[in-house]
Amino acid sequence: MMEQLQHDLSHRFEAESASRTLALLGEKWTLLILREAFFGVRRYGQLVRNLGIPRPTLSTRLRTLVDAGLLQRVRYATEPDRHEYRLTRAGIDLFPSIVALMRWGDTHLAGPEGAPIVLRHNDCGEIADPYLACRNCGGEIDARNVTPERGAGFLGPAT
Amino acid sequence: MMEQLQHDLSHRFEAESASRTLALLGEKWTLLILREAFFGVRRYGQLVRNLGIPRPTLSTRLRTLVDAGLLQRVRYATEPDRHEYRLTRAGIDLFPSIVALMRWGDTHLAGPEGAPIVLRHNDCGEIADPYLACRNCGGEIDARNVTPERGAGFLGPAT
Repeated sequence: MMEQLQHDLSHRFEAESASRTLALLGEKWTLLILREAFFGVRRYGQLVRNLGIPRPTLSTRLRTLVDAGLLQRVRYATEPDRHEYRLTRAGIDLFPSIVALMRWGDTHLAGPEGAPIVLRHNDCGEIADPYLACRNCGGEIDARNVTPERGAGFLGPAT
Repeated sequence: MMEQLQHDLSHRFEAESASRTLALLGEKWTLLILREAFFGVRRYGQLVRNLGIPRPTLSTRLRTLVDAGLLQRVRYATEPDRHEYRLTRAGIDLFPSIVALMRWGDTHLAGPEGAPIVLRHNDCGEIADPYLACRNCGGEIDARNVTPERGAGFLGPAT
């Protein structure tokens, strides 16, 4: 009974953490700014031009992303001081999640003509058509071919 | 100029679609209900027991997920009528995105002991440790080794 409770709490904790990130990304401009960052855009003026985003909105969203630890503000010139926004490790690591969501959007939200944006894999030169793979065997992972288990960080007692 | 504008609009449309889904998932209970669904839980009473979710909240969230096309309500018994909630194709297809986000959470939000939940890949029997792979060469995809290009569904003229 206690164990079940701890199991539930562990589930919930992890989901709340993931939810906070999702809520952050669920704001249209935040997601667009991050995507521009993935495409190499780091400067305020370039973001304004590429996105057509109002400046006060951009300033607020950049602060949110810095506070969330996804971007960092770095000075790249002095007199006058100029800053750019670089992805942190945590920001860079969001890339697979955003790609997976875009792929979902391509399938379920885009028109019949297909994906508006595709990714070319520089290593092999082909369109990546990314999928989630098992690191052991390389096979595709989907909702039907995996079984969840308690990991080392599980809060309840191991059984 | 017009082309740039259409380019921007295309970017923004895609991001808005993805944002709507993210906003939906960014609600703690919605994400938990979906995860239970991935683990095979379909019935109202089981969701109440597993999640400790208040019934009125569960009813509202289930309706939201049905309206979003991620779950469908299916009658599985009569006299009295009983219903269960099954993932739609669109719901099932969200699995890689949710796994990618959980992996991100394991790295950047979990404690030093690591992931609370891991996934065993039934096909090979090992812990999956999932990553985003290129369907052509099987190599890992990350923010630094792909180049975005216009896809067939791009709204602006091809160049």
